[in-house]
Amino acid sequence: MINSFYPPSRTLMGPGPSDVSPRVLSAMARNTIGHLDPRFIEMMDEVKIMLKHAFKTENELTMPISAPGSAGMECCFVNLVEEGDTVIVCQNGVFGGRMAENVTRLGGKLVLVEDSWGAPVTPAKVEQALRDHPEARVLAFVHAETSTGACSDAKTLCKLASDAGVLTIVDAVTSLGGIEIDVDGWGIDAIYSGTQKCLSCTPGISPVSFSQRAIDKITNRNKPVPSWFLDTNLVMGYWGAGAKRAYHHTAPVNALYALHESLVMLLEEGLDNAWARHRSNHLALAAGVESMGLSFVVDEDHRLPQLNSITIPEGVDEAKVRSLLLENYSLEIGAGLGVLAGKVWRVGLMGESSTRRNVLYFLSALENTFNELSVDINYGKSVKAAQSVYDA
Amino acid sequence: MINSFYPPSRTLMGPGPSDVSPRVLSAMARNTIGHLDPRFIEMMDEVKIMLKHAFKTENELTMPISAPGSAGMECCFVNLVEEGDTVIVCQNGVFGGRMAENVTRLGGKLVLVEDSWGAPVTPAKVEQALRDHPEARVLAFVHAETSTGACSDAKTLCKLASDAGVLTIVDAVTSLGGIEIDVDGWGIDAIYSGTQKCLSCTPGISPVSFSQRAIDKITNRNKPVPSWFLDTNLVMGYWGAGAKRAYHHTAPVNALYALHESLVMLLEEGLDNAWARHRSNHLALAAGVESMGLSFVVDEDHRLPQLNSITIPEGVDEAKVRSLLLENYSLEIGAGLGVLAGKVWRVGLMGESSTRRNVLYFLSALENTFNELSVDINYGKSVKAAQSVYDA
Repeated sequence: MINSFYPPSRTLMGPGPSDVSPRVLSAMARNTIGHLDPRFIEMMDEVKIMLKHAFKTENELTMPISAPGSAGMECCFVNLVEEGDTVIVCQNGVFGGRMAENVTRLGGKLVLVEDSWGAPVTPAKVEQALRDHPEARVLAFVHAETSTGACSDAKTLCKLASDAGVLTIVDAVTSLGGIEIDVDGWGIDAIYSGTQKCLSCTPGISPVSFSQRAIDKITNRNKPVPSWFLDTNLVMGYWGAGAKRAYHHTAPVNALYALHESLVMLLEEGLDNAWARHRSNHLALAAGVESMGLSFVVDEDHRLPQLNSITIPEGVDEAKVRSLLLENYSLEIGAGLGVLAGKVWRVGLMGESSTRRNVLYFLSALENTFNELSVDINYGKSVKAAQSVYDA
Repeated sequence: MINSFYPPSRTLMGPGPSDVSPRVLSAMARNTIGHLDPRFIEMMDEVKIMLKHAFKTENELTMPISAPGSAGMECCFVNLVEEGDTVIVCQNGVFGGRMAENVTRLGGKLVLVEDSWGAPVTPAKVEQALRDHPEARVLAFVHAETSTGACSDAKTLCKLASDAGVLTIVDAVTSLGGIEIDVDGWGIDAIYSGTQKCLSCTPGISPVSFSQRAIDKITNRNKPVPSWFLDTNLVMGYWGAGAKRAYHHTAPVNALYALHESLVMLLEEGLDNAWARHRSNHLALAAGVESMGLSFVVDEDHRLPQLNSITIPEGVDEAKVRSLLLENYSLEIGAGLGVLAGKVWRVGLMGESSTRRNVLYFLSALENTFNELSVDINYGKSVKAAQSVYDA
């Protein structure tokens, strides 16, 4: 006999999902209506308007994909990359590697531009790759590398691509709502994000946006998009402007209620205010962490405020620390991924999780846990260091 | 300024989503925890156990795909069909056509076995196709055609395929929880369903199951699965038995709470009882509908209890009827799809929507609407006809 599931109450400071507002959870629990209901279609229109605002774009092809961020990624690649297309992928962490996987699985010719994990993408390397590969059709990179906490200069990279007549695919899973994104201003051609990071919504949906240049490339494909589910030509029959809202697949109605509410909250706060909040909580966290004698993987100029990769002190059992934080404080932080596995903790300050309370709670909990394990750090300073940032 | 969205309260008697129990909505609104949280992983194990029970299978590769039924369909095809593979697809409605689309987009060689819309798949035609195409690798068909309401004989079709050494892909989007499915007993190799039909959960998730024969075919592919998101080899690192629950994508945590609760409810009721309930409400609805002088598209022996395609009486403005039902009764029924567009209404009695109350409400509402539009039918008999079925 299996009973109803009651999750524990957690503080979510990993790489996502982040804490979800009671407003969003409550929206999600409203009664389900049909995906072709006139009232639902009004709500869809509002979601599109708010997503355009969040992405800073007028792109008509801006909508939520009915699946997590990895499907948003695949949506961009499967529509824009055809067999034989040369695609330059920048890899400076796990998620650039996934982009590369998408290219090879689709039969594209992969040109990899590598930077070390924790560093941003180097524009000069991209410039060189574009020069070496005049046949390249697409440049793909991760704006906010969730596996390392490094922020790449999306504006500069997009300028290089557009000067070379190359389309861009940008991973903004962890950036949307946490730091500036300017899809139209920077000339991004295809972008995907996730709901469970700085939008602070439940996981499962991936907002995407495509420029007119991207649509032209899709329209002029030689072969149909291999994926029926992610073919934008079909999806737009349901989500498109002036479309007849033709049935494509059954939209995840309640998940979209949740996204709608999280976007209402983002607009209420204002994009600038949301970015500033993420920044200020990050600075307080960094001051606290550094006062303990711990260091960051990413240098100061390229740190994402919403994802903090902290180097694990020598000799510390990192998994033990995470499990004590979970057991004693019901506090989740993230492990390292890929080459950083076992070397870093990833501390998220995303969306609703980016609060003064969470910063101070995390610093106290971490210090107490270090103390329990007799780790040699500077004790008793971190909370004060963080507070002094807030008070400055 | 965009405000929070409050959906109207509907009675959902279309082709899905169906009415969602308050228990499921309430589960969905529980606080989000991490997709790698030990408590979440316990819940995942319970979801797998319950899905195996619902599908009647011991297949270890039984799990929910983090996207709607169309993605579950794509998951089966993208893993099992390689370029050049011959695939026999049975088409007797919209969803068989989608299967065919999947095959051609993946570069498979399509053999189409056609039956008329409203008829079940004819086993003799499938037998002939298998004989004509000894090179066929896969037979794909829809168990419960949501576009017509026809039920095909999955047991017989799977036996034909297995005798010919051919794998089966079965669309059970509308059947799971509403009529018998016996994955192991019938020897189904790959099956996909949806949450928003007879499981009466919110839309957005697709339960799938693969047999060992299917896994062997996937393991021996010549090329990697073109989709990274739907590659079962990768997904199983997270969902598989004894797997390390390695991060693949961020699971739609709250949607899985909802699925968990809907499966708890299905097990509480019992599969046999759920099937019997669907059957008895269908018989009552059919008696009521026929007493008005309306007819069904599908002959009596092949009707799905959960999806009733009713022929629109001559001269009636079908869209007007649907919009009056929505406006005056907040009652949703479905339009026809494909070749049946404009010719039928599709009345769902799925999951929580399959109740005596809904049957009687629909019959009264439809009669009153016909009356308002001066449609020439037999008045005043339908509710009694339905009641007498319940009382028998």
